[in-house]
Amino acid sequence: MSEYGTLQDRVRCKSLLSKLVPVEETFQYLKDGMNLGWSGFTPAGYPKAIPIAFADHVEKNNLQGKMRFNLFIGASVGAETEDRWASLNMIDRRWPYQTGKNIAAGINEGRIRMGDKHLSMFAQDLGYGFYTKDSPTGRLDLALIEVSAITEEGGLILGTSCGAVPEILMMADKIILEVNTAMPSLEGIHDIVVNKNPPNREVLNITKANSRIGTTYVPCDLSKVVAIVESKHPDKGRAFADSDESSDAIAAHLMDFFSNEVKMGRLPKNLLPIQSGVGSIANAVVGGLAKGPFYNLSVYTEVLQDSMLDLFDSGRLDCASSCSLSLSEKEGFPRFLANMDKYFDKITLRPLSIANHPEPIRRLGVIAMNTPIEIDIYCHANSTLVGGTRMINGIGGSGDFLRNGFLKIMHTPSSRPSKTDPTGITCVVPHCPHIDHTEHDLDCVVTEQGLADCRGLAPKDRAKLIIEKCAHPDYKPILTEYLEIATADCFKRKVGHQPQLWDRAFKMQLNLAQNGTMKIKNWDMKIDLCE
Amino acid sequence: MSEYGTLQDRVRCKSLLSKLVPVEETFQYLKDGMNLGWSGFTPAGYPKAIPIAFADHVEKNNLQGKMRFNLFIGASVGAETEDRWASLNMIDRRWPYQTGKNIAAGINEGRIRMGDKHLSMFAQDLGYGFYTKDSPTGRLDLALIEVSAITEEGGLILGTSCGAVPEILMMADKIILEVNTAMPSLEGIHDIVVNKNPPNREVLNITKANSRIGTTYVPCDLSKVVAIVESKHPDKGRAFADSDESSDAIAAHLMDFFSNEVKMGRLPKNLLPIQSGVGSIANAVVGGLAKGPFYNLSVYTEVLQDSMLDLFDSGRLDCASSCSLSLSEKEGFPRFLANMDKYFDKITLRPLSIANHPEPIRRLGVIAMNTPIEIDIYCHANSTLVGGTRMINGIGGSGDFLRNGFLKIMHTPSSRPSKTDPTGITCVVPHCPHIDHTEHDLDCVVTEQGLADCRGLAPKDRAKLIIEKCAHPDYKPILTEYLEIATADCFKRKVGHQPQLWDRAFKMQLNLAQNGTMKIKNWDMKIDLCE
Repeated sequence: MSEYGTLQDRVRCKSLLSKLVPVEETFQYLKDGMNLGWSGFTPAGYPKAIPIAFADHVEKNNLQGKMRFNLFIGASVGAETEDRWASLNMIDRRWPYQTGKNIAAGINEGRIRMGDKHLSMFAQDLGYGFYTKDSPTGRLDLALIEVSAITEEGGLILGTSCGAVPEILMMADKIILEVNTAMPSLEGIHDIVVNKNPPNREVLNITKANSRIGTTYVPCDLSKVVAIVESKHPDKGRAFADSDESSDAIAAHLMDFFSNEVKMGRLPKNLLPIQSGVGSIANAVVGGLAKGPFYNLSVYTEVLQDSMLDLFDSGRLDCASSCSLSLSEKEGFPRFLANMDKYFDKITLRPLSIANHPEPIRRLGVIAMNTPIEIDIYCHANSTLVGGTRMINGIGGSGDFLRNGFLKIMHTPSSRPSKTDPTGITCVVPHCPHIDHTEHDLDCVVTEQGLADCRGLAPKDRAKLIIEKCAHPDYKPILTEYLEIATADCFKRKVGHQPQLWDRAFKMQLNLAQNGTMKIKNWDMKIDLCE
Repeated sequence: MSEYGTLQDRVRCKSLLSKLVPVEETFQYLKDGMNLGWSGFTPAGYPKAIPIAFADHVEKNNLQGKMRFNLFIGASVGAETEDRWASLNMIDRRWPYQTGKNIAAGINEGRIRMGDKHLSMFAQDLGYGFYTKDSPTGRLDLALIEVSAITEEGGLILGTSCGAVPEILMMADKIILEVNTAMPSLEGIHDIVVNKNPPNREVLNITKANSRIGTTYVPCDLSKVVAIVESKHPDKGRAFADSDESSDAIAAHLMDFFSNEVKMGRLPKNLLPIQSGVGSIANAVVGGLAKGPFYNLSVYTEVLQDSMLDLFDSGRLDCASSCSLSLSEKEGFPRFLANMDKYFDKITLRPLSIANHPEPIRRLGVIAMNTPIEIDIYCHANSTLVGGTRMINGIGGSGDFLRNGFLKIMHTPSSRPSKTDPTGITCVVPHCPHIDHTEHDLDCVVTEQGLADCRGLAPKDRAKLIIEKCAHPDYKPILTEYLEIATADCFKRKVGHQPQLWDRAFKMQLNLAQNGTMKIKNWDMKIDLCE
């Protein structure tokens, strides 16, 4: 037995024990071309025993390319599952967010058909049947759901994430459960609402980050459960991204900004619920809050990382709501387990369709902060496609929070290194080659250089401020010159609300490809349309 | 007295009658540089007596350019007010949506600083103080509010629209009321909720389009009311845009699509609440519904046009919720008045911050339909800037509805005439030069050519389908060739999730400027970066 108890302890609905099978016996349910729904959200709470064993099976039997699936999962999951599947050519379609080298290669070389969607929309649209409408049944063929435990009545106690489990169960014809005995049960941490489809959808009565409006388990139609397996695989968890000088500077700009908003009476002293993305900047911001002047904070977000434990320990954070508890395997998770009494009651895990739902986000007035690939001078942001064409991970929940938050903030370093120039890539460009968040969505842009508060500004005033406050000094004159010549040209033609010159708006990107840097010498450009 | 009763009948709070003044006496409250909040939403319910008289005053006294204001209004209002002000150089800043030749000229020539925002966000952000944060008081200096009547307790009964009146009253230091006796009182049609700011915001318990959760009047701090004037100016109203062959074809595609969704069980027989934009396509769609197979329909939208009366008369529409009743002056409005008993109880007018709020829109599962300037092959849409730089009107509520609806639909003709070619402008392009709605937001694109159901499709599959179903036949081969060469090139470089070629993505637009048509002969392009 595991240190966390036996399988029999976990499966309290004894009639289900008859469905317990060895992992290999579930392979019969996995057929080429199937639509699969998995639990999981970030490398937390995802099925592991079957995906890993089935990948071994495919590899051993040379079934690469003969067993391909459409994967619908709340977000990315551990690399040992979806990325391994990608490496074995086992993924046809993938929605809506992923991580991993092999899966990214498959997507960008055209072997994997990825669809990218706001996470809150993904969950609801999956429940509407939009993604499975072209399959013969119109449904998901099979759900693979990791659970912590099963209640006497057959309710599913989830693990470290809630993901899109309610919608997946709603849409799945068959269900296989993985009971994870390698991790402790988190029974009581979840607040599950199964959001009905319109016209029967109900009010979500969340008025504080820690409001509880549902049950601790997900109701499940047990007649669909075809098998149960025991899993002894712990979550991979999310490695902690250390902050750096640039991230710390961004955090400091934000703390100043919040202090001023409190002073001006636009924010309460304990701010408003915080949403913070993932990565080094997000960790620096949470680190800044842990040393900052604000108390009685709350968090309403989609991923809790290690840094959130520091914020709890600082005595400044009262409670946190999230879709997943994505702590690092070696540090964060052991620390959480060793101090469960301190953290457990302060954390609420919610399904994606609730955690990212515009209704609570707008009602609570969340302070939304996310990191894009780049922003442009008019305050559009690219969160997904490097160079406008190459998929990294996906939009995730950034749009859910930025579109509905009280303050809508993007933070990014002002530049990144290219292969030939340490600041060869500017993260502030004339025009983003892919736009995930528009000028209508964002309030503030922050880089290590400064914070541009764009609230209330018209596009050209925004552009001047973003260049002045946020651009790297190497690019300020280049961007200023572009704004000036584009404005002069567009005014002359009386088309200058948001000046751009389409013969050279991407000159910096073209120069990066040709010369390894975005530091262009001038804005001249000779074009022959070859007509 | 007017045929609709005297001013004394309307002002039931008798203490306020002492503040009644001739229009000219309000000019003392209007000072250069002020932040003004106006009632109104579309040419309905906006202040007219003072704006018109004050424009006369400015013109007569040669004060052009010496009396400039920042105008914050729910959306556009009648041309005789804001557009006249623009022609007299009386507008510095303008948020968030406008119509009129002079105001558009001012914006695109750099004389008027317009800010464009999702309407639901505009209302809330105005109430948060975001737009007035740089003024000395941080507030609106003056509100001009048109009312139908004033209750005994001083509650404001609004007119044909609710606009952003609750937020404007919240933020205004002084208030002037225009009591409109040239139009009948619509007392009882409004459902007013003053949405508190976070962290005190409450649930909006709207579960059907006609749910009533508020009061029939807007509460008002009477101590701020500095003057009341009588207005005898009727609304300009919105001229009815006749449908045409192309619009009718779009409507027919949509009716087929809805029928199939009902058949497949993804939509109830009475559909879900309809949101429909403005213009000839919207009118054709509503016309299609009036002859269609769906009964017990409901509407949850931001503007009700004449065609909605036809839908009521068809016996198919049970109720309609909107922010404004924007009927044509000569036909729609008289028809509405002559049949008040038939329509009145079925219509609910709500403030912008409720009509366009993500919470009810997502809960109700609204079917959102709007017309962009153009869409691109990957399902991004441009709703605001012709050629990516010239402002037309603004994003309006399209984003509020498309981001939160059940079905998110964009409809447009497949092409428009240029000066030299009757189909010289394609509305399906490789890449929109301005993006207001992203690939993450939209489900279906419809032109007179057909409907592309992009739900569940990856970008390249979406592109093929949109070209096949929606592009004008003249452009199909051109767009197909672009997709092919962009895909081949990006796959070769392993960057092809969403293939684009930045040296020529805007070749069609550049050719339009140079040769008067977007029908390019090939995708060749010679570029010299002049480095």
